[in-house]
Amino acid sequence: MPQDSTRDTPRPALRDPFAWIDAHHERRLAAGLVRTLRPRPADSPLTDLAGNDYLGLTRHPEVTEAAAEAARRWGAGATGSRLVTGSTALHARLEEELAAFCGFEAALVFSSGYTANLAAVTALAGPDAGGPALLVSDEGNHASLIDGCRLARAEKAVVPHADPDAVRKTLAAHGGRALAVTDSVFSVDGDAAPLPALAGACREHGAALLVDDAHGLGVLGEGGRGAVHAAGLAGAPDVVATVTLSKALGSQGGAVLGPERVIRHLVSNARTFIFDTGLAPAAAGAALAALTVLRREPQRARRVREIAAELHRRVVAAGFAAVRPDAAVVSVRAPSPEAAVRWAADCREAGIAVGCFRPPSVPDGVSRLRLTARADLSDRQVTAAADAIVRTAPAA
Amino acid sequence: MPQDSTRDTPRPALRDPFAWIDAHHERRLAAGLVRTLRPRPADSPLTDLAGNDYLGLTRHPEVTEAAAEAARRWGAGATGSRLVTGSTALHARLEEELAAFCGFEAALVFSSGYTANLAAVTALAGPDAGGPALLVSDEGNHASLIDGCRLARAEKAVVPHADPDAVRKTLAAHGGRALAVTDSVFSVDGDAAPLPALAGACREHGAALLVDDAHGLGVLGEGGRGAVHAAGLAGAPDVVATVTLSKALGSQGGAVLGPERVIRHLVSNARTFIFDTGLAPAAAGAALAALTVLRREPQRARRVREIAAELHRRVVAAGFAAVRPDAAVVSVRAPSPEAAVRWAADCREAGIAVGCFRPPSVPDGVSRLRLTARADLSDRQVTAAADAIVRTAPAA
Repeated sequence: MPQDSTRDTPRPALRDPFAWIDAHHERRLAAGLVRTLRPRPADSPLTDLAGNDYLGLTRHPEVTEAAAEAARRWGAGATGSRLVTGSTALHARLEEELAAFCGFEAALVFSSGYTANLAAVTALAGPDAGGPALLVSDEGNHASLIDGCRLARAEKAVVPHADPDAVRKTLAAHGGRALAVTDSVFSVDGDAAPLPALAGACREHGAALLVDDAHGLGVLGEGGRGAVHAAGLAGAPDVVATVTLSKALGSQGGAVLGPERVIRHLVSNARTFIFDTGLAPAAAGAALAALTVLRREPQRARRVREIAAELHRRVVAAGFAAVRPDAAVVSVRAPSPEAAVRWAADCREAGIAVGCFRPPSVPDGVSRLRLTARADLSDRQVTAAADAIVRTAPAA
Repeated sequence: MPQDSTRDTPRPALRDPFAWIDAHHERRLAAGLVRTLRPRPADSPLTDLAGNDYLGLTRHPEVTEAAAEAARRWGAGATGSRLVTGSTALHARLEEELAAFCGFEAALVFSSGYTANLAAVTALAGPDAGGPALLVSDEGNHASLIDGCRLARAEKAVVPHADPDAVRKTLAAHGGRALAVTDSVFSVDGDAAPLPALAGACREHGAALLVDDAHGLGVLGEGGRGAVHAAGLAGAPDVVATVTLSKALGSQGGAVLGPERVIRHLVSNARTFIFDTGLAPAAAGAALAALTVLRREPQRARRVREIAAELHRRVVAAGFAAVRPDAAVVSVRAPSPEAAVRWAADCREAGIAVGCFRPPSVPDGVSRLRLTARADLSDRQVTAAADAIVRTAPAA
């Protein structure tokens, strides 16, 4: 009676489709690579050298009040995609102001810098972008640019870090349509890309240049107009920039800046624009208010650079290896991931919040403390912070 | 004197790297496929049947005041990535409340639903996800799930729409680890996925199921707990859901809901979580307040479904082809893209804002009016809207 015996055979236990996660977790745990969230209180007693609020605007009363007022006037959400109901007059004004401030023809605002970068890369080099293009990408680029290059499904060439000659050679060997992609200021080490030389290499070969100015806006250039403006490339017909509203402007969101035809092209073609809900009015209002403060107080941009230079000077004077900062980020090498974690924890004990970057967030495998300068720190706070960092340092 | 003559030869004009955009634009213009932004005022006289504010909460005073209060108390931005400074106690509370409301072990909040979907797909099936997995994706899925599948660089099988047998056969033929991916309610036609049958097919083959419940949360299930909850799948060890905070909850952002180990895995591995600035406090506060209103007034979920059914009844009674709505979206067929655009414009003239979907946003090439019900519409508003839609309809 084979049927009966089949019935009596216990059915195999359902396989656990996430069993692999536990094994993956054990491996990462053993390698010291598991991250945990540490929610912070509203009123932290720590001096923050870890966030990206470079100009100290995220808690500026004009900025927070503009966020509150926008939520009351426009609602808590945009209610739909930008092409349906998600474009308000507030979004349009923010786009005009951003473009004018940074020196570009036009701007388009996104819900995050991540989605802005995905949009720019895919819409300018993807399969619908008028034929195949070569993407030439700096090996140190931000994850969102890398993901944009992956999503674009175009031919890719990853070039050595900050190396215009490598870009030139790659473009010469290719010959066809191309888009070179780079951060303006690299998040991990805080060093700047050689933008004028990169633009020169692109122009020799008729390639376009896309620059992620997330860490340049508000910090570099005249009155904080950004690294692209400082390089004389803002408004150029062959240059596109992306920025975030969540760093120097203290809010949330991102934007693409460029020639009007490029922005118009993104409106009709960029998937992360078309199929995402528009940025919340509160975030648009806050970013607009932050721009207003920055126009009125351009010295904030200089101040944050001075503080970064001072932090670097003191750390190097104490014998540590740190990259000379080109903007607001000061990167200090640590001997190991474990030492970096302990150093950051000791800084926290001493009242200073610092960033701690370790694999796989650092492409070269070198763990670091990542210090970010903030324009609203006093000289006394900077000195105390530098002293605490030096005092808690691991033995070399 | 060849050198001199070389000097005298005019250098070739720099090629215009964006010339292709103009040709692309002309082609799209001729095909009627160019989109333009139409910023709306804060106080529109139109009745909105176009946005996704299903419960009418985006301008609810408790929700907007919570956004305002969060900006004042926590700042206009999160200041950094969730793993550095971007996790506040407000984010943690929102994650607890979302998980509890929807019936899952844990939740993780993102800056948008788009980045939440990219995170879930890539971290559960990407190259770092413990070996190769097959992605089985419904052909009607949202762009963000499709982009997640592309980014995951895994083997993919696109299956016919809402077809559990096709999923079963695909999984049987594959044999190895797999993740099936589906919207719960499809945005274009408003139809629901057969979630219990899909889960059954997955379980037969030990596959995991990922459901984008963006259009189900707040609308379907007991008190608006969503389509996954309604299907009895919330909290299952093999099911992961994503939701948006920008539709029924009237705010901005997205979340992944699932077993605790899945959420923990995303924290350490999902690139759009690790490398994106955290959601702005105002958006987190607004979503929390919307959840509170929904818990207190669960009838909002029933009301929005009733209004969708009534809109559908009236449109069909007038002789138009419309899909019976499974949630809040009513999709009405239009004879052509041009007719759809004209119909939507005539509705607007008559005081009703409706969505207009046409290629390439509609995978089947059929243009539609897309009507969304809203729980805060009065019976009189619903009747007037339906009358206007019928009155302005193009001749069949």
